[in-house]
Amino acid sequence: MNSLKQTSKIIIAAMLIALANAMFISCEKDDSDNNNSNEDKVVKKAPKYVFFFIGDGMAAPQVNITEAALADPDFSSLKGTKTLGDINMRQFPVTGMSTTHAEGRYITGSAASATALATGFKTTIGTISQNGNKTKNLKTMAEMAKEKGMKVGIVSSVSIDHATPACFYAHQKSRGDYYEIASQMSTSNFDYFGGGFAKGNKEKYGAADIPAKMKAANYKIVTTRSELQAASGSDKVWAYNHTYDGDMALYYEMDRPQSHLSLSEFTKEGIRLLDNDKGFFMMVEGGKIDWACHANDVVAATHDMIAFDEAIGEALKFYNEHKDETLIVITGDHECGGLTLGYAATGYESVFDILKYQKVSQDVFTAKVLSWKESKDVTFTQALDSLKKYYGLNDKAAHEKLELSDYEKDRLEKAFKLSMETEDVFSKDEKKVLFGYYDPFTVTASHILSNKAGIDWTSFKHTGIPVPVFSIGVGCNNFSGYYDNTDIAKKIMSITELK
Amino acid sequence: MNSLKQTSKIIIAAMLIALANAMFISCEKDDSDNNNSNEDKVVKKAPKYVFFFIGDGMAAPQVNITEAALADPDFSSLKGTKTLGDINMRQFPVTGMSTTHAEGRYITGSAASATALATGFKTTIGTISQNGNKTKNLKTMAEMAKEKGMKVGIVSSVSIDHATPACFYAHQKSRGDYYEIASQMSTSNFDYFGGGFAKGNKEKYGAADIPAKMKAANYKIVTTRSELQAASGSDKVWAYNHTYDGDMALYYEMDRPQSHLSLSEFTKEGIRLLDNDKGFFMMVEGGKIDWACHANDVVAATHDMIAFDEAIGEALKFYNEHKDETLIVITGDHECGGLTLGYAATGYESVFDILKYQKVSQDVFTAKVLSWKESKDVTFTQALDSLKKYYGLNDKAAHEKLELSDYEKDRLEKAFKLSMETEDVFSKDEKKVLFGYYDPFTVTASHILSNKAGIDWTSFKHTGIPVPVFSIGVGCNNFSGYYDNTDIAKKIMSITELK
Repeated sequence: MNSLKQTSKIIIAAMLIALANAMFISCEKDDSDNNNSNEDKVVKKAPKYVFFFIGDGMAAPQVNITEAALADPDFSSLKGTKTLGDINMRQFPVTGMSTTHAEGRYITGSAASATALATGFKTTIGTISQNGNKTKNLKTMAEMAKEKGMKVGIVSSVSIDHATPACFYAHQKSRGDYYEIASQMSTSNFDYFGGGFAKGNKEKYGAADIPAKMKAANYKIVTTRSELQAASGSDKVWAYNHTYDGDMALYYEMDRPQSHLSLSEFTKEGIRLLDNDKGFFMMVEGGKIDWACHANDVVAATHDMIAFDEAIGEALKFYNEHKDETLIVITGDHECGGLTLGYAATGYESVFDILKYQKVSQDVFTAKVLSWKESKDVTFTQALDSLKKYYGLNDKAAHEKLELSDYEKDRLEKAFKLSMETEDVFSKDEKKVLFGYYDPFTVTASHILSNKAGIDWTSFKHTGIPVPVFSIGVGCNNFSGYYDNTDIAKKIMSITELK
Repeated sequence: MNSLKQTSKIIIAAMLIALANAMFISCEKDDSDNNNSNEDKVVKKAPKYVFFFIGDGMAAPQVNITEAALADPDFSSLKGTKTLGDINMRQFPVTGMSTTHAEGRYITGSAASATALATGFKTTIGTISQNGNKTKNLKTMAEMAKEKGMKVGIVSSVSIDHATPACFYAHQKSRGDYYEIASQMSTSNFDYFGGGFAKGNKEKYGAADIPAKMKAANYKIVTTRSELQAASGSDKVWAYNHTYDGDMALYYEMDRPQSHLSLSEFTKEGIRLLDNDKGFFMMVEGGKIDWACHANDVVAATHDMIAFDEAIGEALKFYNEHKDETLIVITGDHECGGLTLGYAATGYESVFDILKYQKVSQDVFTAKVLSWKESKDVTFTQALDSLKKYYGLNDKAAHEKLELSDYEKDRLEKAFKLSMETEDVFSKDEKKVLFGYYDPFTVTASHILSNKAGIDWTSFKHTGIPVPVFSIGVGCNNFSGYYDNTDIAKKIMSITELK
């Protein structure tokens, strides 16, 4: 019966995809009678509107678990509106595959990767749009677009001075130089910054300093939905929510208060503000996919993937009204977490529909665990009750597959004692492999829920596997093939005639 | 003005055609002035020569570790001739991404997946080119090609009646019906079978039975290099090595005796035998990539990936002589092992150059361990010496990163005792996660070597992540995009005008 349900879901998804293929999607129309794919295709006219979406920590597994989770109509707020495979990025007619390695390290970091994606040059780990020796600045495609007369917008779900957005407007020796990076927002003359607040603020000169610099540079600062909606295209705008997480980022999508602007709202309003006769370039980063994957929290990662995909949906809407003038490119800067959709103990079984029982991100749950450590009044039994409430674990009534085995309870109890600092039975090496730098009890819960669903992780850091590229619109055929992340930048620059 | 535009279009087109002819790689030339990628591209003329390469258990991580390993000039017999990214499949101008799920199960199996790839229809796990209920046969592209008058060849590094090759010529309720499957080779009237022997032989009627059936159907049976080279295009040929592994497959590439034909030789000779005026269809499976990944043996998997890539190289050579008449498509049927290029304990570090110190596949090493269990005269210290010799582990003189930590030695000692059946400290659940159904000592060694290199695994079975598709030649642009594995078959059938 279950397999019948699964089959009909798959059939519906296939029908939807076929329908999408028949109706919705198109690439550029190319008058050349030669579509030799190894050469960059001649593009009749540079696109006027260019979107570059970067899923931080996003490779094929992150895309695929999102599709799979959405096949369960109860998974998200999108209840019943989505089926397997029904994500916006699947509708892109052209795909590519890209390597991500950095100068001097096979597994890249977000700064080196974003420099490659923004400038077309490899650089060293941690460097923000400078060469590997940090002796010269590398011009970014956003700066080139601005010089060409296009408006420019930079959107991210993490702090706006974080590595990925920074590499489009700043040039610094280290991604950790948040103040210097954030200061370069005000001299960029870019038209729109949206998403997280700036980390560079408080650390050096207090929270008001960067906003003051931005105001002095004639930026209008908006921190609520109504303020953003009231902003006009004649304003230079910096938009962020009036509250944010401890790293000045948007809350994880699954924890986001309704009053907070989402990534897709920052994108949608950005499009409205940037739209003008000379066109625009907009970079949108799904930044907290990466953070959730670092913490091996598949549920938070999936919700942030959905948020990212919804932002892509806003660009697709715009594309559908400007098909002959728009290019959209999506990629990931690297994989994160070594996520995969198979686990030794579950073998060929997948139980994605238990994921919906996790109600808060690991961030929120970790805060609870830390409070228990402070109060010293929570027993393991009480901790298990909390786990049942927030992660669904051991809630047999909700789903039989949520039942904890003795082995799993044992793992949780040992981790709980380590979290409470009452007992430590682990070697240093074991701790590195089992918990990374995360709260042992929380990350063990995340692992057990993942594993029960038939999902597993190998790392708390990035991995080196290639990332997918999706493209639609003017020049999109150039993005087919298997190439390096620097090539993505070169292709966008070439098609858009950026110098 | 219009005619001026038309003239310049013609000039640009002429220049592009000249350029395409001058370059190594090309895709089809498409006379349509619309290269809208969502619609299957109009192909001027069906390709005369069609190659379909299936890497069993191959997804992006398997491709990527092969590239990375080849960046070390000492890794393989290809010493010094390859650099990072220098694999044949990277030269393919068009890439796609494909989902793989089966009817009724998210994580597919080789039979369901090969049925999808051979027929364009989903089916249930274990079914060989029949519908999910096993009530009717599904016609395969190989059968369609034969009906069209093309010659047909089926090549695999595993037994020729294994699920993947079987799905191109047989129709059976279960992949386990080896005898019935192998019997259908003789009624297929296909022109060439090459690679592994048939499992269906010995189990029911002795090793001579299937060869006798094949001889009665006028197949010439060849079992050595010289015999295969002496076969002519007028023969129907079944070629396999005179010895094989316990499953009637080719030995792992890294264990292959020089006298044995390799996958690329079976491919090269197959091309010679099949080449004729009416064209041919050839399916080549890299089957033991999957087996190595099941066993989490990254070194054997990489060598088998290289063997697969070299077979692709033979098709590329042919393509270069018949660019306007050839289509090559490569994909994986599913990922296997949950392989990824990042591990919690090594974090951002990758040390791929220690992989070359593993000298035999886990298959060969396991045979040694089993002999120790029989003889009962091998100590753990002696076992470690053997590990040093065959896996490089603890050979500090060779590479400092090979040194075993106390934690690793402890893991190996516990696994050794389990292998020798002298002590078992593991719970049932732990054993499932740590060893699967493999020899505990061997698989622990494979894991430790992988982990030291910055590589990890999550499963001993397949996983559900999407697989890449690579394509070159007539109609290749149709393979860009993100679609389902059934679509790959539909695209090949449509382009090749198979019915």
